[in-house]
Amino acid sequence: MNVTELSRFERRDWDGDADGTVRFAMIALGWWTREKAIPAVQTSDYGDTTVVVSGSQAKADEVAGEWDSIEHALTYEAFLAGEATDAYDAVYICTPNALHLPYVEAAAEFEKAILCEKPMEASVERAEELVGAAAAVPLMIAYRMHTEPAVRRARDLVVDGVLGEPVLVHGNMSQPLLELIPDPDQWRLQPELVGYGTSVLDIGLYPLNTTRFVLDRDPLRVQAMTHADHEAFANVPDERAAFQVAYPDGVFGSFTASQHAAQESHLTVVGTDGTLTIAPAFFPWTPRGMRLTVDGTTASLDWEQVDQMREEFDYFAHCLLTDEALYADGEHGLVDMRTIESIYEAARTGETVTVGQ
Amino acid sequence: MNVTELSRFERRDWDGDADGTVRFAMIALGWWTREKAIPAVQTSDYGDTTVVVSGSQAKADEVAGEWDSIEHALTYEAFLAGEATDAYDAVYICTPNALHLPYVEAAAEFEKAILCEKPMEASVERAEELVGAAAAVPLMIAYRMHTEPAVRRARDLVVDGVLGEPVLVHGNMSQPLLELIPDPDQWRLQPELVGYGTSVLDIGLYPLNTTRFVLDRDPLRVQAMTHADHEAFANVPDERAAFQVAYPDGVFGSFTASQHAAQESHLTVVGTDGTLTIAPAFFPWTPRGMRLTVDGTTASLDWEQVDQMREEFDYFAHCLLTDEALYADGEHGLVDMRTIESIYEAARTGETVTVGQ
Repeated sequence: MNVTELSRFERRDWDGDADGTVRFAMIALGWWTREKAIPAVQTSDYGDTTVVVSGSQAKADEVAGEWDSIEHALTYEAFLAGEATDAYDAVYICTPNALHLPYVEAAAEFEKAILCEKPMEASVERAEELVGAAAAVPLMIAYRMHTEPAVRRARDLVVDGVLGEPVLVHGNMSQPLLELIPDPDQWRLQPELVGYGTSVLDIGLYPLNTTRFVLDRDPLRVQAMTHADHEAFANVPDERAAFQVAYPDGVFGSFTASQHAAQESHLTVVGTDGTLTIAPAFFPWTPRGMRLTVDGTTASLDWEQVDQMREEFDYFAHCLLTDEALYADGEHGLVDMRTIESIYEAARTGETVTVGQ
Repeated sequence: MNVTELSRFERRDWDGDADGTVRFAMIALGWWTREKAIPAVQTSDYGDTTVVVSGSQAKADEVAGEWDSIEHALTYEAFLAGEATDAYDAVYICTPNALHLPYVEAAAEFEKAILCEKPMEASVERAEELVGAAAAVPLMIAYRMHTEPAVRRARDLVVDGVLGEPVLVHGNMSQPLLELIPDPDQWRLQPELVGYGTSVLDIGLYPLNTTRFVLDRDPLRVQAMTHADHEAFANVPDERAAFQVAYPDGVFGSFTASQHAAQESHLTVVGTDGTLTIAPAFFPWTPRGMRLTVDGTTASLDWEQVDQMREEFDYFAHCLLTDEALYADGEHGLVDMRTIESIYEAARTGETVTVGQ
């Protein structure tokens, strides 16, 4: 990494300037949409929130009252019935996992572009249905790490061979879910809404998908262990999980995730010639940190951190405005869904599972 | 961790002052013994090197000439024949793994205390023979991490519950073996001398054993993947390895090791209330670093690093002089040997293996 490359670590290498604005309908008004997504779009270069959609008309009205750009406050039923389709160009879907599919189907029917939160859906089958439903419209899965500067720079370093050949990866994401959201009945703990499980599917996905992106390699085989003891986790297998992944060229990834542990996140890549660690890695509210060691010299990198959600919305909108292909598309998301299904199967059986078989 | 506890981070909590000196016979004069072990003993409080033993009389004479305290320079044959037994109280065995047993047998016959390098031997069977042979003399396995201040303080923090209940552990040790020792025929790559393999057995042992020590829990079940591609690793399964371990109370450990990757070492413990990372963790020539995060506050700890080998030799000698039990003893070492055998079996079969069955 030379001085020129260090310059503007947080640069948008994807941003060629674009004309126009993408108008978003925000579907589901939980804290993430209200506190992260809508504020991010309001400060973005290429987006505007013009429609909000909620299970409660009152909540939709309340949020609409907070932002001048919002023209329509809809219930889910009104949205699905096709109200106000002239007022938005794209939807952002932030419902519980198992409710992504109906809103994707509706948005595709209205010929809208779709930014769908990860994981795509609650199961591989529903995720495949989702991809089928959205075949004729632009679909992006909302992996915000793909536009996180530390992750993009890490990918550059790995792909350019600065670490030599990649050998091993470590990653963790853990958080105290019941402290963040003090509700034992929340959807992330209900299999019918969350899907296969909670720790791997909801947050283990971060080190899993980010490693795919940084290594530019997809999982081949997985091994896994899960454990659940706390009563709030009685209906899911994974209060915590450890899972390891074999990638092409004999690269191994060692990952953990827990919804009932202290907040921690990191991603470490060990190559034949050097090592790289991003820590903290995934939470939007923690500062980033990157350490790069090559040939006995360690660089600790600090930079002006960006708003992850603004980067993601602007990237998505920029692609739409310039007719560029979206990354990650539905097929990309399906690889994670199949890998995660394999991880839960591996934990259940104790055996090594080949992904996608 | 309060200020009193921070004071003298590198303190020897095991050192009650002792009278006397333990005289060591150093068996095998590779670079580690010459550059690390003998210099450490020379500056230690409770040890002296009085005898050196080598395959080559010339090499033994040369090393004996470098240090005033060394009275006898023996060949392996002379040592095994019982020469100069009055000149030493204890032996330090630093031969290739598969040659530990004969020197343990001889030292036990001469009624000497034994400090035997890890891993104990090349296989569980030979390690069990070793423990049997040394039943009547003091035997310690040379896990130098047990007297490393960062590791002892980490254990204190975990056992005292500062992190809450432990949940997940990550650890790696990797090094470019062929750059450190540029000989493709070295013993660490020959199964008949090294044992089951090289990356897990020789260096994966560090995160594996250190985690046992820090958690105060022994492995129950393991899963593993190994890969070897480079021609120098043609006779061992593990140019690199990933292995995960289930401990009591549902704690999981995610570990990797490679003899053909950049030098990297770390150990991270995630608990319900906080997290702790030691990085670098294991190499004696790197500075230590510890980061502790509890309740949103992160402490980065620096301290005056100690000579790991001097700490280990002094601890061993102090125990002998005060008749205290040695930690780690042979039974402790056998747990690692059984775990490592299970890890190689798990990698071979792709199945979850219960340790010790």
